[in-house]
Amino acid sequence: TINGERLWDSLMQMAGIGATDKGGCNRQALTELDQQGRALFLRWCEQAGCHWWLDEMGNLFVRRPGTQPDAPAVLTGSHLDTQPTGGKFDGVYGVLAGLEVIRTLNDHQIDTTHPIDIAVWTNEEGARFSPAMLGSGVWAGAFSLEYGLGRTDSTGTTVKQAIKSLGYDALQPCQPYPIKAAFELHIEQGPILEQAKTPIGVVEGVQGMRWYDLILTGAPVHAGPTPMDVRQDPVLAYASIAAKLYELAREHGPWARVTLGSIETYPGARNTVPERVTATVDLRHPDANVLEQMDKAFRLLTNEVSEIAGVRAEIRDEWLSPPVSFASECVETVQRASDELGLKSKRLFSGAGHDAVYVSSVAPTSMIFIPCEKGISHNEAENIKPQDAKAGANVLLRAILSQAGE
Amino acid sequence: TINGERLWDSLMQMAGIGATDKGGCNRQALTELDQQGRALFLRWCEQAGCHWWLDEMGNLFVRRPGTQPDAPAVLTGSHLDTQPTGGKFDGVYGVLAGLEVIRTLNDHQIDTTHPIDIAVWTNEEGARFSPAMLGSGVWAGAFSLEYGLGRTDSTGTTVKQAIKSLGYDALQPCQPYPIKAAFELHIEQGPILEQAKTPIGVVEGVQGMRWYDLILTGAPVHAGPTPMDVRQDPVLAYASIAAKLYELAREHGPWARVTLGSIETYPGARNTVPERVTATVDLRHPDANVLEQMDKAFRLLTNEVSEIAGVRAEIRDEWLSPPVSFASECVETVQRASDELGLKSKRLFSGAGHDAVYVSSVAPTSMIFIPCEKGISHNEAENIKPQDAKAGANVLLRAILSQAGE
Ligand SMILES: NC(=O)NCCC(=O)O
Ligand SMILES: NC(=O)NCCC(=O)O
Repeated sequence: TINGERLWDSLMQMAGIGATDKGGCNRQALTELDQQGRALFLRWCEQAGCHWWLDEMGNLFVRRPGTQPDAPAVLTGSHLDTQPTGGKFDGVYGVLAGLEVIRTLNDHQIDTTHPIDIAVWTNEEGARFSPAMLGSGVWAGAFSLEYGLGRTDSTGTTVKQAIKSLGYDALQPCQPYPIKAAFELHIEQGPILEQAKTPIGVVEGVQGMRWYDLILTGAPVHAGPTPMDVRQDPVLAYASIAAKLYELAREHGPWARVTLGSIETYPGARNTVPERVTATVDLRHPDANVLEQMDKAFRLLTNEVSEIAGVRAEIRDEWLSPPVSFASECVETVQRASDELGLKSKRLFSGAGHDAVYVSSVAPTSMIFIPCEKGISHNEAENIKPQDAKAGANVLLRAILSQAGE
Repeated sequence: TINGERLWDSLMQMAGIGATDKGGCNRQALTELDQQGRALFLRWCEQAGCHWWLDEMGNLFVRRPGTQPDAPAVLTGSHLDTQPTGGKFDGVYGVLAGLEVIRTLNDHQIDTTHPIDIAVWTNEEGARFSPAMLGSGVWAGAFSLEYGLGRTDSTGTTVKQAIKSLGYDALQPCQPYPIKAAFELHIEQGPILEQAKTPIGVVEGVQGMRWYDLILTGAPVHAGPTPMDVRQDPVLAYASIAAKLYELAREHGPWARVTLGSIETYPGARNTVPERVTATVDLRHPDANVLEQMDKAFRLLTNEVSEIAGVRAEIRDEWLSPPVSFASECVETVQRASDELGLKSKRLFSGAGHDAVYVSSVAPTSMIFIPCEKGISHNEAENIKPQDAKAGANVLLRAILSQAGE
């Protein structure tokens, strides 16, 4: 079994990089701090006898070689980037648990037939650059390299420029290589496991998600003399669309999700009806058909509302990640590993997107979840229990070993 | 009568300073461009034989002396600052029409008993610094000098720093001096005069207005795994409050106004329920009692909505400008001037705030309006007719002369 204290200590050291006042992390993708986090991780990996390479999207791969040259790898890992007001465990836990698995194998001088690889995927959060899971998406072929390198942050910096500014060179092609099986360990980021008092989630798939930019254009007029009934007010339209979207979530049952994360007004003067509202919309559902219904309803209600408000509405499709079911052999591998360790487990679907979504399109893949406090994530207060962290890493160790061959 | 072409030419020259692509102006208070606009105006005033001084708030006063030393002044003027996406006439027209009055008196070698002063008030728009009419408000004693100098723009720069950075010195105390009567000429910024095909508005007063900051604090959580019913979503609360505010405006009749000019989300990530929404609210009504009812209803509905949404609501009072009725002798002076010129006129109340509101608290004051195209203002497309500009300036000339004594 793995060394829980060593794992926890590594998590806490990593959390120091980009630490926020409120106990969280702000270590956004391809920033100087992200680079520092990767450098720390690489020091540890080199000490553990691994070698590594970067690809053109800045995805980082660390390898513990297997005994049989050219055997396909068993892949684990996750991401080190965080939300602007993120926690200490989202992504980081999966990466450092991968390292802990390798350290444990080293401690016990266990060689595997297949290499064990840890991936650190670029820009999983989708916070600095949209969409989420960008590095793994390009790698798996869901997005072209040009698309990936051309994505811009809020200041207009592209992924390509950000990678260059970090001084990365000798980049390998961003493309899949032979992988026998892949396992991503992650915190649940929701309340199910904690409420069920269950340390292990055996993840069967990931729900579908769609991202949009909603742009509402009205007419800027003076707040005082302009009668209400002649206004073309994009805030009026936005408020109504938002209310109807929340209603839509209710109508589509407990698994439907609507999140309105960002709203901007232009010009944003107190005494002027805004000319424009620019907002983000995130719709999710585990069932592709329901997600499509939600998509259609969103377009319809936006048109209806904006027509009534006399506002021009544009919906820009930003991202579609359809629901994914993981390979049953990998799901069963995780189930067996958990059972053999005598851990209580629960089958579930992921509400969050993960790099495993794109990895699963090129290799047999599944995920392991552990509970997080009150289900809170994307929040500086995000927290987990050390014993859960240990349990999850032990399940990962067993799952990897069962595929990598002792 | 005044020289309509010279007035129009001056308006167009001034519009070149801070001109925007869409034909408007962005010449915000106490910026480099505002300074350039003032400098151009001062060159013209010096050519017209006037002298000038600045006060501690950066208010600019230009004087054409009268024949009787120490006689109280007849004051006109308005402001040269604009909205970020403002037009060419809001404020500027009143200032340059004042200059045109002085130029006309010079042309005809007419001396007046009382001095004629043109004020260029600082930060009338309230766009760079809140609240509006800040320079005239401090001058009239509605705000303390400390309050005025301490107001900050969105980058944290204070009024004091902005004044300093423009290199202003030898500033006079910001306080009223003897004024016999004051007249502010302005575009209506609303549709009433145009619809009534009437060139002159005889303004009887200004409606009441209140500004607030609304801060809604929820809990940031992940867009995917977090069930809708456990969220504390400040956007949900905002959408509901906004809808109820627009309803409130409808309930309080055609003169009630609700404007939601700015919304900000923090952290503003697509896949995170925002921790915080910060928004502005502008409520207006000509009747103080109704405005107070609206204020109470706003507080009540905000509490109700935020309690249901599980969100903490804070309402910060930013500004209250109660309804004002202008001095009847000044209103009648304007009415007579308009009648004598054979111009059709209409009595009305102003929906916009103006420096005349604060000036009226220390001296007999009234305003003259002219129509603007489709009532559109605080918009780069703001427009007026040259013949209306001329008519308004002629009314101003007569009103001033009747008070300043030939
Ligand atoms: N795990 C995680 O937070 N992923 C971000 C992508 C998403 O929005 O679900
Ligand atoms: N005239 C004008 O646009 N004033 C700004 C103050 C207000 O918001 O009414």
